[in-house]
Amino acid sequence: MDAKRALEEANGDMAQAAAILREKGVAAAAKRSERETSNGVIDSYIHAGGRIGVLVELNCETDFVANTEEFRQLARNVALQVAAMNPQFVSPEDREGSDAEGPDAELCLLSQPYIRDGSRTVGDLVKDTIAKTKENVRIRRFERFELGR
Amino acid sequence: MDAKRALEEANGDMAQAAAILREKGVAAAAKRSERETSNGVIDSYIHAGGRIGVLVELNCETDFVANTEEFRQLARNVALQVAAMNPQFVSPEDREGSDAEGPDAELCLLSQPYIRDGSRTVGDLVKDTIAKTKENVRIRRFERFELGR
Repeated sequence: MDAKRALEEANGDMAQAAAILREKGVAAAAKRSERETSNGVIDSYIHAGGRIGVLVELNCETDFVANTEEFRQLARNVALQVAAMNPQFVSPEDREGSDAEGPDAELCLLSQPYIRDGSRTVGDLVKDTIAKTKENVRIRRFERFELGR
Repeated sequence: MDAKRALEEANGDMAQAAAILREKGVAAAAKRSERETSNGVIDSYIHAGGRIGVLVELNCETDFVANTEEFRQLARNVALQVAAMNPQFVSPEDREGSDAEGPDAELCLLSQPYIRDGSRTVGDLVKDTIAKTKENVRIRRFERFELGR
């Protein structure tokens, strides 16, 4: 839905039109988050000359999006995040059944504040990429090796 | 022990001198294989534009050896091997207790024929690096992600 139609639907009320657009946006993102993600990319990041290494699998729906700069950049940023912040799980759902102690914002990648902009979470970054690519995007898994740990 | 001393010990018999040197070499390697490995490097390899990714931790005794070309090359070759041959365990010992079916030469990284020289195993490559660096060298762990698998 575009802004003009939203404004018509809201009988010219700008605030209500904005609310309508927001709702539609959230609904569209929720719909996308159910769509199958079988494409994507595996990226890696090696930190400090080989003392820390990270592997990340980021999924999307099509090969086309998998090859976009936007998508690849998210994979790279997620790998950097994992290297720096050492999360234990992808999401709070993955954490269920574990006895790991600590807040989600520390242990769960999607809940962590993004290292390059603490006002947003890694989950927000993923949502941005869903909005921009119009595909469901998902951090499927990661692995982090630290030398001797 | 050098060749001259071995030849004296073998009373001038070249073949016996060679056998003595070989034995001492094996004994030295065995001794080295008990020494602690707390240094090393973590390396990664991304194959086919991001469809397969590998993380490898290779250990040695000192930071000095960890930074040598010889050692780094072994890490790189092991990562390539894991990407190509998809081993499930580092060694036959690691396999114990698992119900994975198949020969060690297929499932265990150290027992696999090396992809660039099928007459030798990955374990042989590690032994070469132990001999050249005079340090204990150990593949501690690896992880392999394949897109959507």
